[in-house]
Amino acid sequence: MQVGDLIRVKKGQNTYEGILMPFENELDDKFITIKLENGYNVGFKLEAVSVKVVRKGKPFSATMPKVDILHKKGLPDIAIIGTGGTVASKIDYMTGAVYPAFSPAELLQLVPELGDIANISGKEILSIASEDIRISDWKNIGASIIDQFNEGCKGVVVTHGTDTLHFTSAMLSFMLRGLQNPVVMVGAQRSSDRPSSDAAFNLVSSVNFSRTDCKEVAVCMHSSLNDDHCLIHRGTRVRKLHTSRRDAFVSVNCPPIAKVMGAKNIEFISSYKNNAEGDLYLDDAIEEKVALIKTYPGARDIVAAYVDKGYKGIILEGTGLGHVPMTLYDEICRGIEEEVVFGMTSQCINGRVNMNVYRGGRMLKEAGVIPLEDMLPETAWCKMCWVLGHHSDYSEIKEAMLADVAGEIRPTSRIDTYDIGRW
Amino acid sequence: MQVGDLIRVKKGQNTYEGILMPFENELDDKFITIKLENGYNVGFKLEAVSVKVVRKGKPFSATMPKVDILHKKGLPDIAIIGTGGTVASKIDYMTGAVYPAFSPAELLQLVPELGDIANISGKEILSIASEDIRISDWKNIGASIIDQFNEGCKGVVVTHGTDTLHFTSAMLSFMLRGLQNPVVMVGAQRSSDRPSSDAAFNLVSSVNFSRTDCKEVAVCMHSSLNDDHCLIHRGTRVRKLHTSRRDAFVSVNCPPIAKVMGAKNIEFISSYKNNAEGDLYLDDAIEEKVALIKTYPGARDIVAAYVDKGYKGIILEGTGLGHVPMTLYDEICRGIEEEVVFGMTSQCINGRVNMNVYRGGRMLKEAGVIPLEDMLPETAWCKMCWVLGHHSDYSEIKEAMLADVAGEIRPTSRIDTYDIGRW
Repeated sequence: MQVGDLIRVKKGQNTYEGILMPFENELDDKFITIKLENGYNVGFKLEAVSVKVVRKGKPFSATMPKVDILHKKGLPDIAIIGTGGTVASKIDYMTGAVYPAFSPAELLQLVPELGDIANISGKEILSIASEDIRISDWKNIGASIIDQFNEGCKGVVVTHGTDTLHFTSAMLSFMLRGLQNPVVMVGAQRSSDRPSSDAAFNLVSSVNFSRTDCKEVAVCMHSSLNDDHCLIHRGTRVRKLHTSRRDAFVSVNCPPIAKVMGAKNIEFISSYKNNAEGDLYLDDAIEEKVALIKTYPGARDIVAAYVDKGYKGIILEGTGLGHVPMTLYDEICRGIEEEVVFGMTSQCINGRVNMNVYRGGRMLKEAGVIPLEDMLPETAWCKMCWVLGHHSDYSEIKEAMLADVAGEIRPTSRIDTYDIGRW
Repeated sequence: MQVGDLIRVKKGQNTYEGILMPFENELDDKFITIKLENGYNVGFKLEAVSVKVVRKGKPFSATMPKVDILHKKGLPDIAIIGTGGTVASKIDYMTGAVYPAFSPAELLQLVPELGDIANISGKEILSIASEDIRISDWKNIGASIIDQFNEGCKGVVVTHGTDTLHFTSAMLSFMLRGLQNPVVMVGAQRSSDRPSSDAAFNLVSSVNFSRTDCKEVAVCMHSSLNDDHCLIHRGTRVRKLHTSRRDAFVSVNCPPIAKVMGAKNIEFISSYKNNAEGDLYLDDAIEEKVALIKTYPGARDIVAAYVDKGYKGIILEGTGLGHVPMTLYDEICRGIEEEVVFGMTSQCINGRVNMNVYRGGRMLKEAGVIPLEDMLPETAWCKMCWVLGHHSDYSEIKEAMLADVAGEIRPTSRIDTYDIGRW
């Protein structure tokens, strides 16, 4: 039984038939995963099933016709950097075979439209499940992006698993200073091989957008259940809001930047950064001891635990306008005494914190908790890691957290109004 | 200077004029809050401003004409239980005076339409900021609701602050067994005194819905920025998704139960429970040592901290389909060895967890983490508190967590498909 074989799995009364998927690592010898004809993956515990090979698989390379790669004059050079996730696996698994599809020939074979809009180069630098992404990975991805630009690429596309795509896009937005060209992150929600899968369409749309004059880190994902267009979200303003739907990624507290219709036209729908500031470089000074805490009624112990562990910064995801239960108040005050920096965001996701309206908020603000306006909690966590990599003085940290670096915050000068917001 | 006075506050170059709001407690002697003419509250640190009384206020009772309360035959008896929050404060603060508006006369004076649809009684049992709600408060609220039904009320409305309204509605959904009549929770997003404030409209709509044959705990809140209707959400399926907008409350993973047009008609838009099961009673056996953890890239220390503190249950709010970074894997396994029960939900909010698709999910499920299908993290936390109050055996706990008690979970019998969901 080899990866790529069509196998039949019997479990109790039920029989399943599908292509044997690659094992992810040595821990997987207890499980097998097959891809059903309908495109879905099913996992089985080996000891609970009986397995039979129906048809041997063919290696991917054998089924792929040759493609001539011509460097077409007039088309921009675009680099695609692979980090793992469903975009890649969609491509890998088309025949059930493992194949990192990052050579130009492979990419063009799988998504021919790419050849009409760009000269593509590809490089897989990581292959991890995105929930396992770490700060060191972000530094590597950032350095690879800089390399591609230094080699003359007009734009860089980064493929990424969707679980933490919005964390990575926010962190890169802070780390990549002086962008002269677009960095477009792209994922796919469905590893299914259905004609309606979002992988190819998202990839073409992201390459198309990477040719524009947008000097930001952006996220390109499906906008609806139809194949009509993708949306381009600002890297600091986007969140995954559905576990499985293809339109799971949504801009929060601001409109998306653009609509992209695959390889076809691009419609800008809000303002974006198109002026470069200074030279391109990677600013990856990061403090790793930063926590993200979602509060809940009666929560206690958790702030104290992080303070005791030597954490330097804590992003609170409070309720409503930025509140925590008073059970946490003393723990927060002790943290502040021990020079831990606290920032407040809201678990409502949409809208703006306002710590002036109610007593609880005022007390926390008075104690030194920084109200982070309309910043997403995930973005605030990334920013705190980055800001604490640069500053150790509280007032400098506060100023830096509240200064707009990459479109992540829109401060209000009015202390007396809620933001109606947009969602 | 007294509560209710019109005062002028000078802060630097700026002058603000408004009604002095009540002090919330003794800690407030450093702050004052005024309500501006536009309805917004502004807080000031007293030492930073100068203050002058422009016009003395009048006590609320003096400005309120007498209302004759007639018990009208043919109208149902509805009880309104007050627990604090903006619905009450909207009513309290109409003249800037503190007044718990929970006598029938006051409620009818402020919202006259109530008298056309019900015989109202009112009782304020708590007055807290909702972020401070505790398990003991939920037991009190539950007991008061039972009392009202035992006294013959046809329906009970509970006013509540919006920060944790969805936690309270979920917890009451589990604790109130054998409901024969509706319990409708209601809040208001705007304490503003504008004509367009949602407080009165939400209250009328909630009283209207409390007259139906729905035998569930429901939440009644504004559905849009217009005053055209409220939505009735299932108590276990609703979440606050905007810090300030009036339409902040949204049904997740299922449609709302009904639309209510104030005191006018009610349009049911999905199925609801209208058959009673056994007698009404309060089942308030609750385990308090339950934590809710939102994961983030590289998260560590936090699960171990709760395990060390003797927590009995932990709801994980993982990424995507229900994943956590591998940095937490050993901590979770140690917790499971020490008989801590783990349940998995998703920080995507919408959609369903599926721990069969990827290796990380399978490993956690194999270790004993319970995938909580399409349950909201907040609801899952309430349910875990309640289930652990009743069971100590892992397989009983697992069975109870996955059994549908109050519409909070829709299990799937298919292991191989994502749920397209509805959002």
